[in-house]
Amino acid sequence: MSEIIGHTGNVAIDSQRLWASIMDTARFGATPKGGIRRLTLSEEDRAVRDWFRDACEAIGAGVEIDELGTMYATLPGTDPALPPIAIGSHLDTQPTGGKFDGVIGVLGGLEVLRTLAETGTRTRHPVTLINWTNEEGSRFAPAMLCSGVFAGAFPADFALSRTDRDGITFADALDAIGYRGPLRAGAKTLAAHFELHIEQGPILEAEEKTIGAVTGVQAMRWFEVTLTGNEGHAGATPMRLRQDALVAGAHAILAIERLAAEHAPDAVATVGLLECRPNSRNVVPGEVFLTVDLRHPSDAVLEVMEQSLRHILASLPAGIGVTVDKVWDNPAVPFDARLLDAIRAGARAEGFTPRDIVSGAGHDSAYTARVCPSAMIFVPCAGGLSHNEAESATQHDVAAGTAVLLRAVLEADRLL
Amino acid sequence: MSEIIGHTGNVAIDSQRLWASIMDTARFGATPKGGIRRLTLSEEDRAVRDWFRDACEAIGAGVEIDELGTMYATLPGTDPALPPIAIGSHLDTQPTGGKFDGVIGVLGGLEVLRTLAETGTRTRHPVTLINWTNEEGSRFAPAMLCSGVFAGAFPADFALSRTDRDGITFADALDAIGYRGPLRAGAKTLAAHFELHIEQGPILEAEEKTIGAVTGVQAMRWFEVTLTGNEGHAGATPMRLRQDALVAGAHAILAIERLAAEHAPDAVATVGLLECRPNSRNVVPGEVFLTVDLRHPSDAVLEVMEQSLRHILASLPAGIGVTVDKVWDNPAVPFDARLLDAIRAGARAEGFTPRDIVSGAGHDSAYTARVCPSAMIFVPCAGGLSHNEAESATQHDVAAGTAVLLRAVLEADRLL
Repeated sequence: MSEIIGHTGNVAIDSQRLWASIMDTARFGATPKGGIRRLTLSEEDRAVRDWFRDACEAIGAGVEIDELGTMYATLPGTDPALPPIAIGSHLDTQPTGGKFDGVIGVLGGLEVLRTLAETGTRTRHPVTLINWTNEEGSRFAPAMLCSGVFAGAFPADFALSRTDRDGITFADALDAIGYRGPLRAGAKTLAAHFELHIEQGPILEAEEKTIGAVTGVQAMRWFEVTLTGNEGHAGATPMRLRQDALVAGAHAILAIERLAAEHAPDAVATVGLLECRPNSRNVVPGEVFLTVDLRHPSDAVLEVMEQSLRHILASLPAGIGVTVDKVWDNPAVPFDARLLDAIRAGARAEGFTPRDIVSGAGHDSAYTARVCPSAMIFVPCAGGLSHNEAESATQHDVAAGTAVLLRAVLEADRLL
Repeated sequence: MSEIIGHTGNVAIDSQRLWASIMDTARFGATPKGGIRRLTLSEEDRAVRDWFRDACEAIGAGVEIDELGTMYATLPGTDPALPPIAIGSHLDTQPTGGKFDGVIGVLGGLEVLRTLAETGTRTRHPVTLINWTNEEGSRFAPAMLCSGVFAGAFPADFALSRTDRDGITFADALDAIGYRGPLRAGAKTLAAHFELHIEQGPILEAEEKTIGAVTGVQAMRWFEVTLTGNEGHAGATPMRLRQDALVAGAHAILAIERLAAEHAPDAVATVGLLECRPNSRNVVPGEVFLTVDLRHPSDAVLEVMEQSLRHILASLPAGIGVTVDKVWDNPAVPFDARLLDAIRAGARAEGFTPRDIVSGAGHDSAYTARVCPSAMIFVPCAGGLSHNEAESATQHDVAAGTAVLLRAVLEADRLL
């Protein structure tokens, strides 16, 4: 396979080497079920960062670190006046994540750099491979925090002051693994930002397509909700006198499920995190904290969904106190037409028919699109499953996406 | 007040001293909201145990410790052939418990022993004050674990091998605070077991009664339920393809709420503890663990409720795996008629009209009733609130209950 895929004239990626890198780094945070638990700025994250730095330096790519720990590995171009073309994604994972989400974007990018380096292929622009800190947002909310700072969506101090559920700040976690660098986040000007990623949905697999040309990212909003009832003894508090916060939470969860159905098939709505307090089997729950994730390709529909959510939370059983915080609001993002053309052309050159697709998930490219031309390539994952230890993609498809990535980078180097 | 309440001939309890002991020990595990967090076998539990031992030894009551950490403080009687009359309850609390649940039973008993000791009142039977280990069951399930072993409901090894949610065993926690004693649990023969407790329900307050003569404890059953769905990306997994374990949990919670309503007004049903996995805001929940607590005064009705619960769990949305474990099954317990007469007589002698009442909550006396005559005294708590930091009882009512307890012990000493 590696002899066929990715042959761009005399420049071809090495599918075996790419796959070996994915499997090799999967040991950092490996879980018994075959997934990865590599929370951002954890000891496992430090280990994979060290590996990544060594791998980049081994091919002569200089590595810079910014003030938020984001890593930039650059092969120089022939024209010193041109800004770099970037390839970026992330090496952090969900608490029970898989081996491919984020990883193939960074290690596919590494395979592109290795191929350029070993074949002596010189681009006009420098090519910079980026490992963005904290894409997942599961330890420090919100997600895509550091590409967000890069794009000016948040100040760096906002990122540094985020805390995890144990009260540890992003800044302390960053210092603990030794990855606070001197570069200001956002200091670099990029000519373009490409990102290779698994689809994390079922469409490509269902349609037997290998390459998705991602035309944009759907709009999404995150909410944090606290429901306050009244604790009481589970045996001695009559049902009629209860204000049970978990029962109120159950009403909310089912109403949020119906809310998504009202805007089918494109809407998704998820209560992914719930904490019950005091969480004791013989105490009527006094407080529930839960998160709500609402997404839709249309900003206008998402606004209607938010209003419905607020109505749901205002209609919970009597006696339940409700607070709602909107902690994240990301409008729909269209990707760059020229970069998409380069991706589609690269796919066809590799023998694939590209399929235009909208991303259901957020990605660092949704932020970079604010400051430079950006676009993404999707490859299928089994069953559309992601954020799951059973997440799976084939060597063939990951190599195909990487080959298209290489072609798109070279095409952008000609165009831009 | 202390001069009036509890005067039984020349023997009167000291309401001020009793109240001071309650407030003094409330510092062990005190919470900012005025409650107590004194989980069983924790460092806070050790501290209050040390206080309790010192207080008992100061009045000449010898303290024995059994293999599960239960403490027995005994004032000798005049007839060496007679087994002790016991007064027992517990000093452990819920994670966000109040100052009275369990505490007034032990410290009310201490006040009875102090009164006997300082007035030189000699009973025929020894009088033994018991601090039962792990009544609450919130750190180590099930509740009333050690009175259960005492009564032969479980072997001691079962108790020692229980683990908390962090995987720490009861045995290790017991050794860590230095409270594993030489006495075999269940070695003692008791002539009777009295327990003073707050009602933990709203009835006495609503009817303006001070003393409840507790005729028994309702039946209760505990279940642990695991719901298994499928994790997926919250943005990219279409609603129709989800198996969301938390949505399934919400269906179960509301159906369990309706189940209690079908057996109103006596039935109670509570989901008090829920853990969502992986509990990340942008992951469709793959697994939910929850507990179910069902109670009813009638064993037969509770059996119908259990069958309904099993039907509910078998009817959850398609694709959700369900496991159900019944971890505790306690039948309804009637208390001893002679001890109840002693309590009612004591209440009337103190100027109160006793109110017969069924306990909604489990108590150590529900187990001791299997091996010796047992009965309980209830006093009101504000709003019926318990298992809550705002739990509240008045000095008057606690002293009244203690005075009745003293009279009941002296009456039992004559009768038995």
